[in-house]
Amino acid sequence: MAQVPADLKVCIFDVFGTVVDWRGSLIQDLPGLGKKYGMDTDWTSFADDWRGLYQPQMHRVRKGELPWTNIDELHKEAFEMLLTKRGLKHPGEEGSWEFTRLWHKLRPWPDSVEGIGMMKKKYVVATLSNGNVALLINMAKNGGIPWDHCFSGETFKHYKPDPESYLGVVKTMYLQPHQVMLCAAHNGDLKAAQKCGLSTGFVLRPKEHGPNQKTDLKADGEWNAVGDSMVELAKKLGC
Amino acid sequence: MAQVPADLKVCIFDVFGTVVDWRGSLIQDLPGLGKKYGMDTDWTSFADDWRGLYQPQMHRVRKGELPWTNIDELHKEAFEMLLTKRGLKHPGEEGSWEFTRLWHKLRPWPDSVEGIGMMKKKYVVATLSNGNVALLINMAKNGGIPWDHCFSGETFKHYKPDPESYLGVVKTMYLQPHQVMLCAAHNGDLKAAQKCGLSTGFVLRPKEHGPNQKTDLKADGEWNAVGDSMVELAKKLGC
Repeated sequence: MAQVPADLKVCIFDVFGTVVDWRGSLIQDLPGLGKKYGMDTDWTSFADDWRGLYQPQMHRVRKGELPWTNIDELHKEAFEMLLTKRGLKHPGEEGSWEFTRLWHKLRPWPDSVEGIGMMKKKYVVATLSNGNVALLINMAKNGGIPWDHCFSGETFKHYKPDPESYLGVVKTMYLQPHQVMLCAAHNGDLKAAQKCGLSTGFVLRPKEHGPNQKTDLKADGEWNAVGDSMVELAKKLGC
Repeated sequence: MAQVPADLKVCIFDVFGTVVDWRGSLIQDLPGLGKKYGMDTDWTSFADDWRGLYQPQMHRVRKGELPWTNIDELHKEAFEMLLTKRGLKHPGEEGSWEFTRLWHKLRPWPDSVEGIGMMKKKYVVATLSNGNVALLINMAKNGGIPWDHCFSGETFKHYKPDPESYLGVVKTMYLQPHQVMLCAAHNGDLKAAQKCGLSTGFVLRPKEHGPNQKTDLKADGEWNAVGDSMVELAKKLGC
């Protein structure tokens, strides 16, 4: 395995799935909000379907089919697509935003805050998420995640895995690519970052997609560090 | 005096002079670095002259005379202008950057970290500085300033007091202008923010420019809150 560079300065983190449990949080929160608006459906599959529209929605922006559009707007639009598909009553404009803002309240995995706090003592710790800046800041406030800063696809007007997102952080911080490490639970994200010269840290999240997860069940690249939890990853980084 | 809005969500802070003592820090740090590079001058007036070039340098960007250029680059260029003016030996490219990076290490006023920490419990606390993002993140790490996020002129490619900078934060955070408060030691900055509809908090920094300061010795606008220190300002905001 590649080593952790001695002059590593900044750890940036994928957020959905890596730091927070989007699926568990949505499954917990959706039924209550559904009840408030008189909407009844299988909210577990709704959560999966909503997340399922995440990549296709961003892809419309990447292809230029949509101008730059942030994740809140894409989440809201995807939510409304699902309402139509499932024949559910529209909860009104403000209701639609209330559902969309559930993504601002996703809870961290039990080890995330501790592990990131350990890394914060030695490195700059920041997001590099496709979530927009307001979402990331609000989520950190709700969940007590001690970021030094929130970088987002919105910052660079490019969604991961576009190279402009990873290299945007490198350039903004006046560093060499290897001095920035992407920490993520997704091998594909790490591969794209590595291609740009960044260091890479894999954290295992075998329940991100629920009990029957098929993907990202192990590190399948030459990453600089690998951990079964964020705390273990922090230890691998000398924290 | 105007009141503090009950639905205030985000406090953004001017940094140079408001949160950190740029003059005292530079006067402390410049002589040592000068000695290292064999440069001798009156470093106190050098610090004042360097800061004196800050507004003119940004103005070149505002006028379109320069394309977007961040503060590190503008600081470095101004440093080199002063070398020429004072007939000082150029310390080389890396040396010039070492001087420029002194701005990343400016120390907070004694009450800043405590006051901002108090506000952080109730509000999102973030910079809105003309300093670039790397400078702000590094400064926060060095000084222990607990920002939730660093907004910068660099984020919006507009230097304060351009409206795009203040309104950039409002739009990014999906808020109404009055839900964002600019906290600053400079009446001019607050006036520009107020014109955009933001709330305003004045903190008195009577020694920013040294013992003979003539400007900003009192609040001279209808600000929503005024404090003699960051801790007092935090108390006025109900923290």
